[in-house]
Amino acid sequence: MLDFKSLTKDELINLKTELQKEYDAIAAKKLSLDMSRGKPAASQLDLSNGILNSIKSYITEEGIDARNYGILCGLKETKRLFSDLLGIPSSKIIIGGNSSLNLIYDSIARLYIFGALGSKPWGKLDKVKIICPCPGYDRHFAILEEFGFEMISVKLTPDGPDMDEVERIAAEDEAVKGILCVPLYSNPDGTCYSDETVERIAKMKTVAEDFKIFWDNAYGVHHIYKERKLKDIFAACEKYSNEDRVLYFFSTSKITFPGSGVALLAASERYVEEIKMRLGIQTIGYNKLNQLSTISFFKNADGIREHMKKLADLLRPKFDIVLTKFEKEFSENNLLRWTKPDGGYFISVNTIDGCAKDVVKLAKEAGVVLTEAGATYPYGNDPHDSNIRIAPSYPNKEELKEAVDVFCVCVKLASVNKILSQK
Amino acid sequence: MLDFKSLTKDELINLKTELQKEYDAIAAKKLSLDMSRGKPAASQLDLSNGILNSIKSYITEEGIDARNYGILCGLKETKRLFSDLLGIPSSKIIIGGNSSLNLIYDSIARLYIFGALGSKPWGKLDKVKIICPCPGYDRHFAILEEFGFEMISVKLTPDGPDMDEVERIAAEDEAVKGILCVPLYSNPDGTCYSDETVERIAKMKTVAEDFKIFWDNAYGVHHIYKERKLKDIFAACEKYSNEDRVLYFFSTSKITFPGSGVALLAASERYVEEIKMRLGIQTIGYNKLNQLSTISFFKNADGIREHMKKLADLLRPKFDIVLTKFEKEFSENNLLRWTKPDGGYFISVNTIDGCAKDVVKLAKEAGVVLTEAGATYPYGNDPHDSNIRIAPSYPNKEELKEAVDVFCVCVKLASVNKILSQK
Repeated sequence: MLDFKSLTKDELINLKTELQKEYDAIAAKKLSLDMSRGKPAASQLDLSNGILNSIKSYITEEGIDARNYGILCGLKETKRLFSDLLGIPSSKIIIGGNSSLNLIYDSIARLYIFGALGSKPWGKLDKVKIICPCPGYDRHFAILEEFGFEMISVKLTPDGPDMDEVERIAAEDEAVKGILCVPLYSNPDGTCYSDETVERIAKMKTVAEDFKIFWDNAYGVHHIYKERKLKDIFAACEKYSNEDRVLYFFSTSKITFPGSGVALLAASERYVEEIKMRLGIQTIGYNKLNQLSTISFFKNADGIREHMKKLADLLRPKFDIVLTKFEKEFSENNLLRWTKPDGGYFISVNTIDGCAKDVVKLAKEAGVVLTEAGATYPYGNDPHDSNIRIAPSYPNKEELKEAVDVFCVCVKLASVNKILSQK
Repeated sequence: MLDFKSLTKDELINLKTELQKEYDAIAAKKLSLDMSRGKPAASQLDLSNGILNSIKSYITEEGIDARNYGILCGLKETKRLFSDLLGIPSSKIIIGGNSSLNLIYDSIARLYIFGALGSKPWGKLDKVKIICPCPGYDRHFAILEEFGFEMISVKLTPDGPDMDEVERIAAEDEAVKGILCVPLYSNPDGTCYSDETVERIAKMKTVAEDFKIFWDNAYGVHHIYKERKLKDIFAACEKYSNEDRVLYFFSTSKITFPGSGVALLAASERYVEEIKMRLGIQTIGYNKLNQLSTISFFKNADGIREHMKKLADLLRPKFDIVLTKFEKEFSENNLLRWTKPDGGYFISVNTIDGCAKDVVKLAKEAGVVLTEAGATYPYGNDPHDSNIRIAPSYPNKEELKEAVDVFCVCVKLASVNKILSQK
């Protein structure tokens, strides 16, 4: 294992010259590649084209004309589809609009304005703090920041958030009102919460009586290399009489079409009744034709599972490209560590400290857009300036190869620059 | 003109006996008819069936794949469609999800949580009051009540709200933060605001600097008998430098499919920029395929206008049935007054004072569901217990004839009971 920090200044200068030459040659190509967002490629979307013409009848199994008003919280058959897929009783499920992020935002807005089950509205409190396992999802952090909540970073271990820390924080401060989790194939690390982690989150003592677990199971069926299982958060919470803690989210954005899919919110029967009452003020109902086309297209949960296998077959070679290249370039040195996720949409990398921003800047100048460095931490502030999220899904394989090549040169150049500056 | 109040007790008792007999005969039929909600009939919906298979290409005119993430606030071509239809510049328009009611709720939630353009969040104020022209729309009132706002009823005249009252209220109380209007074919009266009313709303002095006009133009192109014009609220407000007052709403819920259409929010360029910034935290974007199918189906604003004529041809005979029957039964006596709207979805009636609840109850017991009495007033409280909203769209013509017959008997019976009780 080569430790670049042990190289002499001259060795580093020589290396830098070589790398700079390599980088300049790449930059001269004027590439325009994007590994920044978790967008599916057109080839993935094509697999769902049939959904648009899938509706055979407008009449639901309950005899309702889905083209008209009626049904606030989801068609019976759509609830059953997701109930079967996710193992959540239909009685806990609300089918929403096109975006689970919107459901998360609205759920937080409801807590802010009205509280939950009789608790004081969060907007009336001096301070609200939310535990954020890190690295995490920038759009989650943006919502929490928008509401003026303080985000408390907790390190994500390979088994999920550091639960000693989480338990300590939740048990000592009444202002700590929740934790925001992506429990399976987390964004960006691809971490899957262990059974013990789920159990401890369900069981832990919290000073706040209205503590909420925001359980964004965005990648709940998005297996790529291996099918990881997630312990049932509802069952775990019920065991400890904490069932009102859970706000569970899911969507078909990365199953069918992002922005035109169907989103889901689930909570305890008691909490879901309250949410329905408030939802009934907010809207007459969500798009039932979208719900109908989803069920018409997939038929049942197995239909979605089969579809996910086809999507995985498209994603796997792309993940392979990135992982193989990293292995080749960085397995024998200390410049980059990376995750090897079993599913999801991302690979998370850590450069040596203080290099992530430089890498992203170099890549951008060479025509490769990456997720902003820092984006995976609250307030955009990665304390080590080290984490970068790699999204391999959108470019085609040729583009991806090129983009990863550029990325690797940028990592090396930025690292050598950093090490040199410290000599 | 027969004044029932001038009848003798004996005459009234005889009348009551006859009416009760008539009512009992109807009740024995065990009807099941619904004139309660403004739902389109299946025959109206059928005119839009083609929208589901209308998309020819997923690529927008700006070259964006509408199946994927991207575009927060509406496709360029969809904005242009509604810009042409409503006479609002695209720069003021945000295309939302499936529900303008949801956009109204979210707009109020934003004002509650964040304020607007630097103003204090409404949720941080001791008191917020909103002017509500009455009779009005129950779901509007429900939103205002949900946020704990005080609703101030102002009488709706044939030219719109009593502007002397509105101006007085807005000018004397800082807590008065807005007015909620359905300016064309209002729900339920079918009132169209006159040019002078629009001008005065735009011009009036308000103590609250962040006063908002919630302009729910829900029936903006829903002409039936005559094409009434609405003065441009944006132009009027701009004339008096009050352009940030307007929050304009529209949707295709009653053009294509309720709950599966496209909703619109418009505001001044300055205000719309702020809303977009906050929307960008709430969601990645609304359903673009729905937007694309709307434009593919209608082609342009004239396409919508032609479609509205076909819908009017279906609605007009139903309005005729109700209006003709009312004319026959009540033009020669004082038991019912009713509106004769040029468009929209409703006919609004007023019984003699203290009868509306009884009429609704009698009708229900005879198998005809009407909108709850009181629903057209804030807090469900019609001070005269007189107003009932008639929604003729949903039943077919035969059903409607039967339902109106029942309604008329109920009005007479309840009136005679009331007058008798006061003798």
